[in-house]
Amino acid sequence: MVAEIQNRIAESFAAQGLMATLGATLEHIEPGEVRIALAPHPGLSQQHGYVHAGAITSVLDSACGYAALTLAPEGHGVLTAEFKINFLRPADASRFVAIGRVSKAGKTLSVCQGEVIGEWGERTETVAIMQATMVTPAPRP
Amino acid sequence: MVAEIQNRIAESFAAQGLMATLGATLEHIEPGEVRIALAPHPGLSQQHGYVHAGAITSVLDSACGYAALTLAPEGHGVLTAEFKINFLRPADASRFVAIGRVSKAGKTLSVCQGEVIGEWGERTETVAIMQATMVTPAPRP
Amino acid sequence: MVAEIQNRIAESFAAQGLMATLGATLEHIEPGEVRIALAPHPGLSQQHGYVHAGAITSVLDSACGYAALTLAPEGHGVLTAEFKINFLRPADASRFVAIGRVSKAGKTLSVCQGEVIGEWGERTETVAIMQATMVTPAPRP
Amino acid sequence: MVAEIQNRIAESFAAQGLMATLGATLEHIEPGEVRIALAPHPGLSQQHGYVHAGAITSVLDSACGYAALTLAPEGHGVLTAEFKINFLRPADASRFVAIGRVSKAGKTLSVCQGEVIGEWGERTETVAIMQATMVTPAPRP
Repeated sequence: MVAEIQNRIAESFAAQGLMATLGATLEHIEPGEVRIALAPHPGLSQQHGYVHAGAITSVLDSACGYAALTLAPEGHGVLTAEFKINFLRPADASRFVAIGRVSKAGKTLSVCQGEVIGEWGERTETVAIMQATMVTPAPRP
Repeated sequence: MVAEIQNRIAESFAAQGLMATLGATLEHIEPGEVRIALAPHPGLSQQHGYVHAGAITSVLDSACGYAALTLAPEGHGVLTAEFKINFLRPADASRFVAIGRVSKAGKTLSVCQGEVIGEWGERTETVAIMQATMVTPAPRP
Repeated sequence: MVAEIQNRIAESFAAQGLMATLGATLEHIEPGEVRIALAPHPGLSQQHGYVHAGAITSVLDSACGYAALTLAPEGHGVLTAEFKINFLRPADASRFVAIGRVSKAGKTLSVCQGEVIGEWGERTETVAIMQATMVTPAPRP
Repeated sequence: MVAEIQNRIAESFAAQGLMATLGATLEHIEPGEVRIALAPHPGLSQQHGYVHAGAITSVLDSACGYAALTLAPEGHGVLTAEFKINFLRPADASRFVAIGRVSKAGKTLSVCQGEVIGEWGERTETVAIMQATMVTPAPRP
């Protein structure tokens, strides 16, 4: 069943054109947690050359959404209802890992918390934190 | 002075690699308001083919940031401290316009409200709404 | 039908012990918008004598919730799923009016935007702005 | 120095009229973390008799603010810039503890994460989670 949800998420991730455009890769899936990696490149930058808040947000949104999907009833989908994100330091790391975790899995609404960890060689620090509400609608009959 | 801030924002926008990657274009600048347009394409999609929440968010974040910059003290920069966004309907329009507006311009913190308008031919509807806090740091000496 | 929803909201408001404790009063109800007034007193203060962010938030949350209820399907209730609030200036006005408005009314989720207007004699200014998600659950069978 | 900040927070808390009105008590202070307890009573209720979202929010806002204050430069104050809160389950516990923790302490902006734990006899569960931005202004000369 874990394998099934992993396959389903991998397939859905592959269908997200934006993830390919950003160069994001699906790194880890377990019940209640999903990780997505992002390597910086000039096509992701904001005006100072750091990674744009929008790129950081995009991978963290996907990580939270798929985390919600790991615990959703079978066959349900996932859509982002809303989220809030704080940026804690400049996104000038050499690699980023977005981690989405489910705080409360509900029948139709799930609440997730996420963070993006920046890696500067050996050093790691949290770059952004998110609190998100995901809708997990039932499959259409 | 309006021309000066317009030039400065156009230059900064051109330096945002992510905006080029997404295909976003700067559409309108006036004191307190900035608009950025986005045309959907497969490279922006989520798993159902709609535009990914992260792409919608990215252009709206930039619109809010530049709106804050139009009212910031001369020479100051702009960085996103945090934002919250609600998605009101599927992003399946044929074109999107992200509008950022300043609700309160402060010396170091500015609060913005934004919305993304979807266009389906003649019909327009709000696709997402944002409330954001921008930092407008003084130039480094 | 407007009278019916007004009665229902007035009754629900009267059952909110917190509104009485804060001294808040229901001021206006129309489809899609509800206003609640609050007069400052020492029992609402934060450490500098202004009205505490929590009191401002409480009346705005109620205003948004009841705004959602005015457009909810008949018999449905209302619960706050989440909200985000920005405080724009010190809450040192002589009176406050919290205005909740529906941005998108859905079958089970409604999105609202709200603001708290401070009154200093003739002068009025926005003290806080909110973006909220309300759940409007069906009545239990 | 810990004693000094504890005294300062206890004094500030005692000056918050709203905390007395709600019946909240300061429970624990350490660098980076503050806890505030709340016992439900009819004067805190929403329309179903649970504790109102606004009361839950008020104590968590204060806990986050004081947590930020524990790590702020000496003499600085604290004000809430904004927060976002998700409500995870009905607030029908017999006691609540709001825990505010600093995620990033800055010179003028601090980011906090908080949660409210409900206690039902031996059982405890998270009732609400918050992500907040606090301003810690320098003392006026």
